Amino acid sequence: MKLANLIGERFKETPSDCIIESHALMLRGGYMKYVANGIYSSLPPLRRITKKIEQIIREEMDALDGQEVQFPVVLPASLWQESGRYESVGSELLRLKDRNGSPLVLGMTHEEAAVQLVRDYGSTYSRYPFMIYQIQTKFRDEARPRAGLIRVREFTMKDAYSFHTSTEDLEAYYLRCHRAYERIFARAGIPEVLSVASDSGMMGGSLSHEFMLLTPAGEDSIVLCSSCGYRANMEAAECITQNCTDAVPEPLTPVETPDIHTIEELCSFLEITAAGTCKAVVYQKNRDDSYVVLFLRGDLDVNETKLTNHLGEEVHPALIREDSGLQAGFIGPCGLDGSFTVLFDRSLEGALNLACGANREGFHYTGLCMQRDCPDALYHDFAKAVEGGICPVCGKHTLTISRGIEVGNIFQLGSKYTRAMHMQYTDAEGVSHYPVMGCYGIGVGRLAASVCEARHDGSGPIWPVTIAPWQVHLCCMRSDNRKVRETADKLYDGLQKAGIEVLYDDRNVSAGIMFSDADLLGIPVRLIMSPRNLKENCVEMTLRRDKTDTGRYSMEEIIPRVEEKINELMAELQPES
Amino acid sequence: MKLANLIGERFKETPSDCIIESHALMLRGGYMKYVANGIYSSLPPLRRITKKIEQIIREEMDALDGQEVQFPVVLPASLWQESGRYESVGSELLRLKDRNGSPLVLGMTHEEAAVQLVRDYGSTYSRYPFMIYQIQTKFRDEARPRAGLIRVREFTMKDAYSFHTSTEDLEAYYLRCHRAYERIFARAGIPEVLSVASDSGMMGGSLSHEFMLLTPAGEDSIVLCSSCGYRANMEAAECITQNCTDAVPEPLTPVETPDIHTIEELCSFLEITAAGTCKAVVYQKNRDDSYVVLFLRGDLDVNETKLTNHLGEEVHPALIREDSGLQAGFIGPCGLDGSFTVLFDRSLEGALNLACGANREGFHYTGLCMQRDCPDALYHDFAKAVEGGICPVCGKHTLTISRGIEVGNIFQLGSKYTRAMHMQYTDAEGVSHYPVMGCYGIGVGRLAASVCEARHDGSGPIWPVTIAPWQVHLCCMRSDNRKVRETADKLYDGLQKAGIEVLYDDRNVSAGIMFSDADLLGIPVRLIMSPRNLKENCVEMTLRRDKTDTGRYSMEEIIPRVEEKINELMAELQPES
Repeated sequence: MKLANLIGERFKETPSDCIIESHALMLRGGYMKYVANGIYSSLPPLRRITKKIEQIIREEMDALDGQEVQFPVVLPASLWQESGRYESVGSELLRLKDRNGSPLVLGMTHEEAAVQLVRDYGSTYSRYPFMIYQIQTKFRDEARPRAGLIRVREFTMKDAYSFHTSTEDLEAYYLRCHRAYERIFARAGIPEVLSVASDSGMMGGSLSHEFMLLTPAGEDSIVLCSSCGYRANMEAAECITQNCTDAVPEPLTPVETPDIHTIEELCSFLEITAAGTCKAVVYQKNRDDSYVVLFLRGDLDVNETKLTNHLGEEVHPALIREDSGLQAGFIGPCGLDGSFTVLFDRSLEGALNLACGANREGFHYTGLCMQRDCPDALYHDFAKAVEGGICPVCGKHTLTISRGIEVGNIFQLGSKYTRAMHMQYTDAEGVSHYPVMGCYGIGVGRLAASVCEARHDGSGPIWPVTIAPWQVHLCCMRSDNRKVRETADKLYDGLQKAGIEVLYDDRNVSAGIMFSDADLLGIPVRLIMSPRNLKENCVEMTLRRDKTDTGRYSMEEIIPRVEEKINELMAELQPES
Repeated sequence: MKLANLIGERFKETPSDCIIESHALMLRGGYMKYVANGIYSSLPPLRRITKKIEQIIREEMDALDGQEVQFPVVLPASLWQESGRYESVGSELLRLKDRNGSPLVLGMTHEEAAVQLVRDYGSTYSRYPFMIYQIQTKFRDEARPRAGLIRVREFTMKDAYSFHTSTEDLEAYYLRCHRAYERIFARAGIPEVLSVASDSGMMGGSLSHEFMLLTPAGEDSIVLCSSCGYRANMEAAECITQNCTDAVPEPLTPVETPDIHTIEELCSFLEITAAGTCKAVVYQKNRDDSYVVLFLRGDLDVNETKLTNHLGEEVHPALIREDSGLQAGFIGPCGLDGSFTVLFDRSLEGALNLACGANREGFHYTGLCMQRDCPDALYHDFAKAVEGGICPVCGKHTLTISRGIEVGNIFQLGSKYTRAMHMQYTDAEGVSHYPVMGCYGIGVGRLAASVCEARHDGSGPIWPVTIAPWQVHLCCMRSDNRKVRETADKLYDGLQKAGIEVLYDDRNVSAGIMFSDADLLGIPVRLIMSPRNLKENCVEMTLRRDKTDTGRYSMEEIIPRVEEKINELMAELQPES
């Protein structure tokens, strides 16, 4: 099509609310438009990209014997009540009522709908395994939508659900799906996406992985071992610490610490390191506001996902009331009185001679020896892994922390949903069982934004040819020159006849505007027709990614050369099968 | 794929709630599953059909220079407040609130979102005309979902919006779109779909057409003229009547009519026809429950769409209270006292010697002469057109009434939305104007169901090859016979390699089950491999639509013959361009 007719506007200025580059570029390039908080409309270039991504996903899901279905966006609350999630999921699940007052929800994931669809079909073992998937709009009422298409409220997602008669079969299929995901990301142009162990969260189940694009713009923290290759989301990463346990125990000694409230102040006052302290972090349960006091080594931070999983309920940072019985700034594990849930991180296990609060305004203790002073403490892993920390797999001090965008996730759900929703099959002996499930998600828009984040320069996105809105961007410089324009028009026709997707810029605008628009549209192959090229009877071909001249070709040979180049670019993104 | 792996179940019994055949067949054939009132999941055969329909629509929209975009399903209420429809549209618009209490709506149509998307882009005349479209999920909270996919609450719709700088340009584009719609229905296999003039309803605007599949199962009434070809939805059809105006006026005379409350009773009592009476139909305004009394000739029925359009607000049939001042059963135009809205249908204009209520319990009048007795009456068209009625175009008594399913609609919206939402462009002279819009909808699922309604027999749907879930259904009879099975397997591979979409039934089941399943899946070309065919070294080909043998071909020639047949079936559905 002609650029002059392309809906949407391109502009130079970065909108003030853009915190990551893909967001800014996709607004500046006319890819999308803000409608409401976390809700966007897609303009034609983005819709063309997402259609190509959807097609890649379809092909890979079909290759896994997946069958495409479509679930409703609006679901009856009763389905979510069956699984128990109508109550357990927080306000990200948008609940509403229809004209008759019947309660509904907007689908944010479709395990319930999937089970409902195949509950009868899957009644006999001979029909297993099978997988169904859809590509459909979802709504998740995020508290803090941000970063353009990275974290939105409404999004298009491919979600797949597999059903199996054994965990072994699920595991084997899960592995196939893992490979299909690698192929999808490679084909979409970001083969560097890594899978990491993840926390299953509200989905339930035993094992899950996230596919992460490592980038400083990501909102997830990823723990990586540079030695053995261990990879996990911070939420799921085990934290291993070593404490010096052969020092001479000192007595528990109160120390007057006026105006000292933080670990930093305490360390500087006592001239010790944070690792020599035991700090308290206080939360309140969302359910009843009761207090949870968590003790951990002063140099570590709380991993709230682990805390929530341990408690089996949501918490929020505490507002410590005067009458709570807690001495804010001076909370310690000895002599802590009151009906609190008290937890100990395993970084404290066996630790000697720590400084901690004395539960008395203006006082701390030194010489805290855990085994002696807190003999009943039970230790669990509640801490965040740290840079340089110990790898839980190889045991070396080789952990690094990176930021990442989650572009996909896969879960082994077990029988959580089939059991709750009474889906059973009869085996060859006539015995009933609950099938086990896997589920597999990819956000289409987020994947597009992630590719933009990973593949751009200062002037715009550099779309991989597999998902680029068009394959070729044809620029006609000085379209007011009749001969130049006629030649460019002819080339446009020829490219279209050859089945090549061309965006044709025949506007009579300056080279500056023409090329900055082309950069923002990020189309991989660029062809330039100009008075000079016409004189030399050639067309200039450049690639968006390097902007170097890849050659000048005569009008006769240019189309085959373009086809060759497209095939070459395609081949680069073909994953090994 | 293999039928044995196809998700979904097929069964014989017609579910009790199915009032039309397409609904029953699409449930019985495993096309869809009920989730909630008016909400269904699509199983793989239906999803394959809808994807093909979507592709046909895309091609035709692209050929109209349409650009595909995507609007959100969930929209901020503020957008609908801008257009005024947040207040004016009834409870079919589902209103909800997000976690922060912000009001949202579920998109049931996207004029507002379309204007929001291009409001800035369309600021200068040189960018016109343009058209944007999407294929997206919509939700309309219907009071009475029914007939399977014909009237649902959640549905996938293609909706397109065109923008123009003049009404002439809109009209020319509207005509192109009209032709594109004819092509879409022809390509989907129902070229008999007719366009009819329609009422614009909540969309507003001046001119609109509906595309109707005529079928007794339809829920719309269509008025057709067998003489001149005039076609209109009953809602929009003009009603023309002739009254005898040269009789001798009789005096207005009260008649005692004890226990006579209906027109039928009155006619039989007075020995006259219903056309010789003036009847009252009473409504109440939804807004304030005030009464609307509409008088029309006794043989006609009220067209409530015309009434609503005239009043500019919604009404419902009245519950006549004792203290209302209305004498139910005896209401007439003479001496009607009270603060009612009184309306006269033009069927009464100039009428002489009618019988009517006397506004007194137990009394009617005869000899009502409209001009003499109701000199101030203003007449409008409020009546439904009738079978054998007068065509408003050619004037002959040649109207017939048929039932139809609306499979698409197109509207000339004028500047209703651009004006309300302050979208303006500057013309070449720098003067600002409101652009005019057209909008163009097709329900994808309803189109699939309509094709099923138009193309089925007692055993199942007969899908046109263009939208059939697969092109070829390969039946292997007696798959327990090793040689037969190997030959069928080989044929399956060969067909797939030739790029033909095959559903392969290699189950070891009876011919009865195999063929009734094949009939329910409605795939156009059927191939049969059986012990007998193997012996004769041939494959049998039949067509779903006539089930007659179209020939037996050797294994060597069968694939080219199948390709030929598919091309032949495709060509039948190719509209003249």
